[in-house]
Amino acid sequence: MKITKQQLEDFARGAALLGAGGGGDPYIGRLLAEQAFDDFDVPEVIDPDSLDDDATVIPIAMLGAPTVLIEKAASGDDLNLLLKEMEHQLGKKVDAVMPIEIGGVNSCLPFVIAARAGLPVVNADGMGRAFPNLDMVTFNVYGCAISPIVMTDEHLNALTIKTRCAKKAEAFARSIVAETGLSAMISCYPLTGKQVKEYGVKNTITLGLEIGQAIKFGRQSNNALGALLDYLASTEYYKNARVLGHGKVEDVLRETRDGFSFGHCTIVENKVEEGANIAPREPIILSFQNEFLAAKQGDKFLATVPDIIAIVDSDTIEPITAESVRFGQRVTILAISVPEIMTTDKALAIFGPRVFGLDTDYQSL
Amino acid sequence: MKITKQQLEDFARGAALLGAGGGGDPYIGRLLAEQAFDDFDVPEVIDPDSLDDDATVIPIAMLGAPTVLIEKAASGDDLNLLLKEMEHQLGKKVDAVMPIEIGGVNSCLPFVIAARAGLPVVNADGMGRAFPNLDMVTFNVYGCAISPIVMTDEHLNALTIKTRCAKKAEAFARSIVAETGLSAMISCYPLTGKQVKEYGVKNTITLGLEIGQAIKFGRQSNNALGALLDYLASTEYYKNARVLGHGKVEDVLRETRDGFSFGHCTIVENKVEEGANIAPREPIILSFQNEFLAAKQGDKFLATVPDIIAIVDSDTIEPITAESVRFGQRVTILAISVPEIMTTDKALAIFGPRVFGLDTDYQSL
Repeated sequence: MKITKQQLEDFARGAALLGAGGGGDPYIGRLLAEQAFDDFDVPEVIDPDSLDDDATVIPIAMLGAPTVLIEKAASGDDLNLLLKEMEHQLGKKVDAVMPIEIGGVNSCLPFVIAARAGLPVVNADGMGRAFPNLDMVTFNVYGCAISPIVMTDEHLNALTIKTRCAKKAEAFARSIVAETGLSAMISCYPLTGKQVKEYGVKNTITLGLEIGQAIKFGRQSNNALGALLDYLASTEYYKNARVLGHGKVEDVLRETRDGFSFGHCTIVENKVEEGANIAPREPIILSFQNEFLAAKQGDKFLATVPDIIAIVDSDTIEPITAESVRFGQRVTILAISVPEIMTTDKALAIFGPRVFGLDTDYQSL
Repeated sequence: MKITKQQLEDFARGAALLGAGGGGDPYIGRLLAEQAFDDFDVPEVIDPDSLDDDATVIPIAMLGAPTVLIEKAASGDDLNLLLKEMEHQLGKKVDAVMPIEIGGVNSCLPFVIAARAGLPVVNADGMGRAFPNLDMVTFNVYGCAISPIVMTDEHLNALTIKTRCAKKAEAFARSIVAETGLSAMISCYPLTGKQVKEYGVKNTITLGLEIGQAIKFGRQSNNALGALLDYLASTEYYKNARVLGHGKVEDVLRETRDGFSFGHCTIVENKVEEGANIAPREPIILSFQNEFLAAKQGDKFLATVPDIIAIVDSDTIEPITAESVRFGQRVTILAISVPEIMTTDKALAIFGPRVFGLDTDYQSL
């Protein structure tokens, strides 16, 4: 199958929702992919199960603070250099690329490099959502090596990290990205086809596209939220989805430090959706580190990582990234379940709430 | 020729003097080399003019704050990994290693890897002294590429930087070394034999050895300072050497930040050497960034980079690094000329006094 240029808007919208507020501005990712589709060709999206066991697949992403990603998009040459350097490090040709996360610009970026290099994109990622850290990936949870990691920047500097420790890789990459001006292209966890099939979160590109389409079609009958929830309920991963509340954004605190965008926003409810399991009137506070980490009302956690917390415009159900939240927006807060592979004990040890300093165990939606 | 285990002490002493207070503790470097000579074999030191034009030579160094280098020595495995990674990046075997600077631990380190890997050490370096930054090398001044740069640490993490800009390489390396705990092995400016012959500072290993020997033999007749000055006067590079003063170390300010050791020390004169061209009684202030940058008395610069400013124990004429300076030491301050290749306009643009923020032009000794 292919995701056509016309479908990119829907795909980017769906991926932005799964991105849990992170992964950079989906609009930028879509523009980059559209440009690449025009200048080169529309890449194939291939089923992970069709991969040869010994195929070489590399995940691709932008690393940095979303605040900066908005301003400094990829030139394209940095992506070609990324591929070339990774092939040099591996000593072999790459057969396919894939997103490391489904979220914002990072869901679209593999399409840019795939178009430019004539490679297919594998219909899978390593999170089924977005996360801020390089170690927060199924491939790390289940023992795939993160190295070699290749990074490139817009000045065509290229850096390679080889380490056995994904957390250390994250630390190196973060210190490097501070020196590239808080934005770099990155590829890590070079995988065999077998590893993609065993540990990848499969079909998330298709799911992203269909989520975006559900919202668009729902708008035509003025029921985009209903259409979205209905569609999510029909999926394998995201079926437990619920509205945490509706309200107006009041406070927003946003700080770019240590290579991340940290902060929180306060949403004061204007009404409570029927059946939403919350007390009325108390504001909901969403904390984020690139992605939304937790939704809290008073002392009570309504949802936490690794479940997806997302906010959408209450009228259009268009997802809003943590970078784009601002005072006065009328928003709907959603909590969405994630694939089972993301909530095992092993997985929670790497991206459960306590890893982010939240004082709660993970409670399944 | 070889530098025997017995000669390492003299060589380290001489290199410490040329190191201008930087390059890390020479005692550590000497111990590492002695251990490698015991465990492996004593490497050949070869004349740079004997190199084939297309030989592959890599400079080797430790990067970081000398404060930390004292505590975290190389394990040896990190050096073997450095060589292996550089060969992988270059896609060819390395024929010889060399110091990037003659100074402290970095003058001895190439002997460690040479012993471990059975390679010769080229009798040359890229400074004829030590400097804190990776761009401050003759090879950069005269247009040799700094990339690929390989770094390894004691946990056997390996990082590679490819950039066309030596200053950017320095920035990347410095951000990486902050993440390795302020100490890493590094190789950069992989050179052809032709480049070593054209742009290297030749015979500095022999010069370092002979400086150390001159001090030692001078001690036997209680005239180590005279013996040192006589020997320096007989050399091609270091012939303009003078005593700036003798005195007692009073204040020392030392700060480890941004991956460097910054500071200054104040030396209050107890007497003035006859013929020393300075006013008596005013203290001399030496500023340093790893290496000593300037000697100043009141408003007057007595000497600045790139000339070598060194302090030695007034009794033994043993060089004292900027890291080891402490209150109460009786010291002699020396200023020593550097090779002509280090004082051209091109060279001064990269490591002249203004580059270090000193408000003076370079004045030849």
